[in-house]
Amino acid sequence: MSTTNLAVIPGDGIGPEVTAEALKVLEVASPVKFEQTRYDLGAERYLATGEVLPESVLAEIKEQDAILLGAVGGKPNDPNLPPGILERGLLLKLRFELDHYVNLRPSRLFPGATSPLAPAVLDKGEIDFVVVREGTEGLYTGNGGAMRVGTPHEVATETSVNTAFGVERVVRDAFARAQARPRKKLTLVHKTNVLVNAGSLWWRITQQVAEEFPDVTVDYLHIDAVMIFLATDPARFDVIVTDNIFGDIITDLAAAITGGIGLAASGNINSSREFPSMFEPVHGSAPDIAGQQKADPTAAILSGALLLEHLGHPEAAAVIDAAVLADLSERGSEPRTTSEVGDAIAARVTG
Amino acid sequence: MSTTNLAVIPGDGIGPEVTAEALKVLEVASPVKFEQTRYDLGAERYLATGEVLPESVLAEIKEQDAILLGAVGGKPNDPNLPPGILERGLLLKLRFELDHYVNLRPSRLFPGATSPLAPAVLDKGEIDFVVVREGTEGLYTGNGGAMRVGTPHEVATETSVNTAFGVERVVRDAFARAQARPRKKLTLVHKTNVLVNAGSLWWRITQQVAEEFPDVTVDYLHIDAVMIFLATDPARFDVIVTDNIFGDIITDLAAAITGGIGLAASGNINSSREFPSMFEPVHGSAPDIAGQQKADPTAAILSGALLLEHLGHPEAAAVIDAAVLADLSERGSEPRTTSEVGDAIAARVTG
Ligand SMILES: CC(C)[C@H](C(=O)O)[C@@H](O)C(=O)O
Ligand SMILES: CC(C)[C@H](C(=O)O)[C@@H](O)C(=O)O
Repeated sequence: MSTTNLAVIPGDGIGPEVTAEALKVLEVASPVKFEQTRYDLGAERYLATGEVLPESVLAEIKEQDAILLGAVGGKPNDPNLPPGILERGLLLKLRFELDHYVNLRPSRLFPGATSPLAPAVLDKGEIDFVVVREGTEGLYTGNGGAMRVGTPHEVATETSVNTAFGVERVVRDAFARAQARPRKKLTLVHKTNVLVNAGSLWWRITQQVAEEFPDVTVDYLHIDAVMIFLATDPARFDVIVTDNIFGDIITDLAAAITGGIGLAASGNINSSREFPSMFEPVHGSAPDIAGQQKADPTAAILSGALLLEHLGHPEAAAVIDAAVLADLSERGSEPRTTSEVGDAIAARVTG
Repeated sequence: MSTTNLAVIPGDGIGPEVTAEALKVLEVASPVKFEQTRYDLGAERYLATGEVLPESVLAEIKEQDAILLGAVGGKPNDPNLPPGILERGLLLKLRFELDHYVNLRPSRLFPGATSPLAPAVLDKGEIDFVVVREGTEGLYTGNGGAMRVGTPHEVATETSVNTAFGVERVVRDAFARAQARPRKKLTLVHKTNVLVNAGSLWWRITQQVAEEFPDVTVDYLHIDAVMIFLATDPARFDVIVTDNIFGDIITDLAAAITGGIGLAASGNINSSREFPSMFEPVHGSAPDIAGQQKADPTAAILSGALLLEHLGHPEAAAVIDAAVLADLSERGSEPRTTSEVGDAIAARVTG
């Protein structure tokens, strides 16, 4: 049995609790043994030491095979934790330093999950799509500035930077994922009618890469039109590829319509495998319920499945997926603790 | 009876049909007489002449008191009509040239309208909010560029430009609208944790202007969190103020959850009254059903009500509103022609 080095960043709030369950399930499901190294990063560390992501820690993490992250974030509106510190200093820093150009977010309406959409919409078909969100460019590059700050003459800018290199690799990844799915359908989402420079680049590259995937059907929608379809006919989507900010917006709506971010898993993937990829539930650290064994670890466990799939163990990933599906469809109204849910899913994996 | 000069841009597709009904209702509802001047602008004119918005036409429009627009846009994927031509050359050009800094989009779930949201979500409360979208800055300024176009080394940028002047006037307008509503609640929407430059500016100005409106409750949400709330608890919103692109995205989702863009009205407003404001339904030109009297003119008629309100006739606007509400709550399944709907609403206004 080979060994895989796994960086574990449990984080803040409910992060450690859900991470424990994800590891519990990974241990029983994985064909490889994980050598775990824990990294204490997040709001707590920042508040205690002022450190967000020390260079030495980053250097160590870069040597790992994969990263499992729980959730980071402190109490809402903590004056000692200005907005952006953890997001830009830790989460986005990892995505950029580890070149996570594929931000992968599957959206499925699981059995037993409650969608806020009406039955007439849900009856149109099964909701099962994947958003491939570009993770290293766009408005997330920190290419902004401000002048005359605090005066009536302030000017603040944010620049979305898009490169042929960056767009092509994520579009190609999305095509490959579409080709591997039964419906083989890819929807490019942008705002080409307004953002004509970036839009033309995304459009042109998508047309070019499409030639390599003649069996994939390609479709285009403006970001505003996507909002309408996600609310009225989400079953129409198979694979969506889009830029960083549109992907951020789409995936939260996608999570909401499939029963909430409590079940949404994600991968921050470096498909070229130069750096370790990172897997995390989409939900936050929920400090209000931390340490009470109230958090649902399902999204963290599903993120573990994405991790296994990325590491080349699709069968093991499928076993976790099936165990989660079975658990979800038999969930009653009786509340279970975080570790009870993990135990139940782990038992289904081994059983 | 005083006279008001009204520029009418019927546009393409169903534009002329819905505009005719909006004018029909305006005529019976308005306390002032409208002196109409029609401007033939849109896809048809562009395809026939290559002209989008001649300078002389723009100069004339600038002298009018208000503008009523139907819809512009040609057939989807017409190779002779590249994306962006009409959007940037006509719609956005008017918004920018006429300094329409308040893009106003009311979102109400009307009686009889079918929301794609589940009853459990709708039961949480009445959906009745207004989005105040900034209309002259942000990513819509055309501040982008591209280099090495068409090569593997292309770089394309889009810059969001935000000024204290631009943010303050729209935020102040939004506060005033919130203050005039029963709930007096304002939600600022941005992405301050990533777009720290523009985000700080929006945040600071909102805090500053809030001091002038002590009776308005202020709240902040990230754009991604707004997606979740619009899908799971839209009743929580009263007035939303946000930038140009976030506003574009939010308002289409808002229209979708309140029964579709077929009912959504909008105003492109220059609150300082230096230039004429423009009122238009949110829907497009729907070329597939053009000329068949199939289009629902309700959104155009409601845009006429916004126009009257802006021109200082809130009672007349309320009469149109009430007539539309009454018509909507008594709509049966029997289809009516575009002009039958207009007749019915006009009759309620006069009756
Ligand atoms: C926390 C924040 C920086 C992040 C993002 O905007 O990408 C989050 O919203 C997400 O979607 O992972
Ligand atoms: C047509 C397009 C330029 C426009 C926009 O993006 O503002 C439209 O989507 C809208 O919301 O009015």
